[in-house]
Amino acid sequence: MISQRVIGRLSQYRREVQDLLAEGQMYVFSHELADLAGVTAAQVRRDMMTTGFSGSTAKGYDVKRLADSLARFLDAPQPQPVALVGVGNLGRAILTFFAHRHPNLRIVAAFDVDPRKVDRPFDGITCYDVNRAKEIVARLRIRVAILAVPAAEAQAVAERFVRAGITGILNFAPVPLHLPDEVFVEPIDMTTSLEKVAFFARGSGRT
Amino acid sequence: MISQRVIGRLSQYRREVQDLLAEGQMYVFSHELADLAGVTAAQVRRDMMTTGFSGSTAKGYDVKRLADSLARFLDAPQPQPVALVGVGNLGRAILTFFAHRHPNLRIVAAFDVDPRKVDRPFDGITCYDVNRAKEIVARLRIRVAILAVPAAEAQAVAERFVRAGITGILNFAPVPLHLPDEVFVEPIDMTTSLEKVAFFARGSGRT
Repeated sequence: MISQRVIGRLSQYRREVQDLLAEGQMYVFSHELADLAGVTAAQVRRDMMTTGFSGSTAKGYDVKRLADSLARFLDAPQPQPVALVGVGNLGRAILTFFAHRHPNLRIVAAFDVDPRKVDRPFDGITCYDVNRAKEIVARLRIRVAILAVPAAEAQAVAERFVRAGITGILNFAPVPLHLPDEVFVEPIDMTTSLEKVAFFARGSGRT
Repeated sequence: MISQRVIGRLSQYRREVQDLLAEGQMYVFSHELADLAGVTAAQVRRDMMTTGFSGSTAKGYDVKRLADSLARFLDAPQPQPVALVGVGNLGRAILTFFAHRHPNLRIVAAFDVDPRKVDRPFDGITCYDVNRAKEIVARLRIRVAILAVPAAEAQAVAERFVRAGITGILNFAPVPLHLPDEVFVEPIDMTTSLEKVAFFARGSGRT
């Protein structure tokens, strides 16, 4: 069982390595990656060992080989299709954000309950009625969903998509989801995060 | 020193309590709030004690009084002005998301380096040149910034805003920031989060 934290860090290294690649840097030391990611060099080396990568030389890691290795480890062999559930302001923002960003994770279908949105394209992605979850998720072989629906609807909508075959959810609805253990849920709660920043920015909570 | 976790939970309870208030519910038990937030009832009671709230009766907490108490604890006496730094796709999405959402945390100024964006309004919020950070942050007494700039620029831009008086940052740039300890930073990394979901949704990492 690989921990979430390891995957989170590998994803971060991968982005750094891609930046280095784009800048034409050929080698990188573990301590450089560590500085960028805010961890120790030993941590970087342990994480790389988890992926089976062993390309360390006196000059450091070969950036190109490391990038390939991380991609092989993190990405599915084929691009993974993603569903966006909820095409409100936040959903549309998420769609725009991810649209051309991650060739390996592609939003291929959107869902909403609003008849004015259904059958319309958003950023080139068709919006389907939530009632068609089962059919579309099966047809497009989707396993990953981004949930951007109001808090009050999140649980029921999540259950519907899990029944349709979804096994991983990025949950932007500000409410915890109660789902079977096999379903992986990662919450992002922007409102709580901003309130937290505002609280500590005031110097509240300092003694 | 109040922990981030406590503030995160209080923010979550507050949202639940506001929902109950809107639905006309007058009392709520700690175990009900606990279920909604995914914690234990004892945790809810401890957290409420942190805020100095002691309105528990045989019928549970008085919802209206609890809402007021949480707001008093979490919110500044006056609405807190917030700066949005970076008006790209993500920045605009964030602006739309927070625009009419949180009366107590208001985005009052946006910043960008792109001359085509500067001096234009976005969702009714003026976009200023990043060079004017010091002047505008001081004039509008802003202490909270939402950072939605590319990873490569995040550190330098964050330092500039900290010099201008910012003490709390919600960081959407996918890179850790190195800032003085007095500055509170909360990261939200949507790409890493989605990669994590995709990884575990495939069943990778299961033994």
